[in-house]
Amino acid sequence: MWFTCEKELLENAINTVQRATSNKTTYQILEGILIKAIDNKVVLTATDLDLGIETYIKANVNKNGAIVVNSKLFGEFIRKLPNDIIMIEVKDNNVFIKCNKSEFVIVGNNPDEFPSLPSINENTMYEISQDLLRNMIRQTIFAIAQDETRPILTGILFEIKDGMLNFVALDGYRLALKSESIESSQNISAVIPGKTLSEISKILEPSDDIVKITFTPNHILFTFENTKIISRLLDGEFINYRQIVPDEYKLRVKVSKNELLDSIERASLLAREGKTNLIKFEISDDKMVITSNSQIGKVYEEIEIELEGEGIKIAFNSKYFVDVLRIIDSEEIYLEFSTSVSPCVVKKCDSNNYIYLVLPVRL
Amino acid sequence: MWFTCEKELLENAINTVQRATSNKTTYQILEGILIKAIDNKVVLTATDLDLGIETYIKANVNKNGAIVVNSKLFGEFIRKLPNDIIMIEVKDNNVFIKCNKSEFVIVGNNPDEFPSLPSINENTMYEISQDLLRNMIRQTIFAIAQDETRPILTGILFEIKDGMLNFVALDGYRLALKSESIESSQNISAVIPGKTLSEISKILEPSDDIVKITFTPNHILFTFENTKIISRLLDGEFINYRQIVPDEYKLRVKVSKNELLDSIERASLLAREGKTNLIKFEISDDKMVITSNSQIGKVYEEIEIELEGEGIKIAFNSKYFVDVLRIIDSEEIYLEFSTSVSPCVVKKCDSNNYIYLVLPVRL
Repeated sequence: MWFTCEKELLENAINTVQRATSNKTTYQILEGILIKAIDNKVVLTATDLDLGIETYIKANVNKNGAIVVNSKLFGEFIRKLPNDIIMIEVKDNNVFIKCNKSEFVIVGNNPDEFPSLPSINENTMYEISQDLLRNMIRQTIFAIAQDETRPILTGILFEIKDGMLNFVALDGYRLALKSESIESSQNISAVIPGKTLSEISKILEPSDDIVKITFTPNHILFTFENTKIISRLLDGEFINYRQIVPDEYKLRVKVSKNELLDSIERASLLAREGKTNLIKFEISDDKMVITSNSQIGKVYEEIEIELEGEGIKIAFNSKYFVDVLRIIDSEEIYLEFSTSVSPCVVKKCDSNNYIYLVLPVRL
Repeated sequence: MWFTCEKELLENAINTVQRATSNKTTYQILEGILIKAIDNKVVLTATDLDLGIETYIKANVNKNGAIVVNSKLFGEFIRKLPNDIIMIEVKDNNVFIKCNKSEFVIVGNNPDEFPSLPSINENTMYEISQDLLRNMIRQTIFAIAQDETRPILTGILFEIKDGMLNFVALDGYRLALKSESIESSQNISAVIPGKTLSEISKILEPSDDIVKITFTPNHILFTFENTKIISRLLDGEFINYRQIVPDEYKLRVKVSKNELLDSIERASLLAREGKTNLIKFEISDDKMVITSNSQIGKVYEEIEIELEGEGIKIAFNSKYFVDVLRIIDSEEIYLEFSTSVSPCVVKKCDSNNYIYLVLPVRL
């Protein structure tokens, strides 16, 4: 193998595929990046066996070939080189990297030992913009389950139904549902691991460029620009989330998102000290009072609201409110309540493409 | 106690004194900030018994008084308030904090239990600009000893001699000496704890405003703007550093600081893998070759230099070079050598106010 390429292109490609490199593995080859030079392209691949990322860059290939190099060391060295042309050559399993007057030699690994990514027939493709996919991930992923008690809840439901794409995450205490219209005559339902979506959202740009999505029974493939990301899907049935979201309410509060967030953040300073994260809402007429108590003190916060319906007293884990208020992209929001033991639903005032549901704490 | 003040002023004052708050203490009162309202001022004080910081802000004081509040909780709450007027009132050891429609109550501690800072007679004052003091700290502090085997080396020597102010740090492997002229007819020598100077450098601004410095046999006092910082000094004699710095050399290399830093950083990637941090210099005629080796590979770097004298082969711990090259503020530097077992001296080409000395590794 022997090729030259631009440092910046190579660095970006390494940054992309490194997101799939395994950090805690006993299988040493997974700490590496597979580099393949074919004709006028260099293809980089990394995988931890659950998630695989492949990307290519333009290069001047003098001799086709392949090698596996340690991802961390190779990445750090390339990053520290000046922005110039890099030459990479493999002789007897030694990888020579040259740039200006710098020369780096590392021992490579046999490319035949590198696991190949599952091959996926790219028949049915769904299309969505990078920016939209990023937002759908960001607005739901925080609500996935953090423990593995029910593995299916560590993923996000990807559902296409009746021309809508729905992302759903829930952990038993709250649920986040983000919807966008999509062009598709087919319905589909699959659960994508949270880790996969978290890494993808770091690679996606806030741009209108298209991501193509394909499924097999066990895998999902994302294709955009020069990059392919393949992940296994989670086994099992997702919870029937439609049964959980209430379709009516007894009272509805309209409130400024930022004022509510600031007040809850201050109240949660003490709630945190008490280790319960407990905050109480007292809603009546034109104001909402938020309080929290602990051994060392108490907080009282008052916010102006618009109320439809009767008042209510209800308590929550403050973290579940802070999480959603930090990511919701709307100036004003609705809070919908029924009783002090039934869930609160958070919606945007200016759009119905986002629903967040949170269970109260019984006092 | 009862006063009102601007949120921003109070927040800045908290940020300043918090640098002396003790984090790992069994003496609970040291986790607090002493707040004293006197006439039209509010004075905040924190100390960990080694380091004490006191600062004051303007305030409308309705009732003089004092209280101790938990530093972390108080600081976080004030920080999260809007930029507005804050009212603070103490009733029966409860501290009431009000701002707009937010109200926070925390239990305070008895101010009489808070240790008072040593009182210092501000007779002889040395003056230096904030920016200069910041730089003198930054360019020496990285060379202090990290372990407590010889406690005196965990401090920086503050020496005034013959109209020069010298800061000296050394750890047995390298030495950093920064000098500036100062107006003083007296000579002085004291060793200031590294931790004190590290916290001070985070409070100082890059401005021409003056810092006044006073000594007692056991303490040092820094005064600037509304702030006083008092620290104990380290006991014992500092090493006679003048004996260590060689006053001649056999060969001298002129080199671009950034090129040398980049090359050494790349070489140290492998040096680090080998866990020795070992890099080798081979200096001859108009070039300097830097190499490093480990089981998994090797790096070869070549840099253009101007050489006075004969060539040399010499080896170093790369970390000791990276540290100084990251902070030295000069485009071009001199490296002065005598033999492969005697120290290398690093100097700036455009000034003689900085000397760094590093011991080689014997091969």
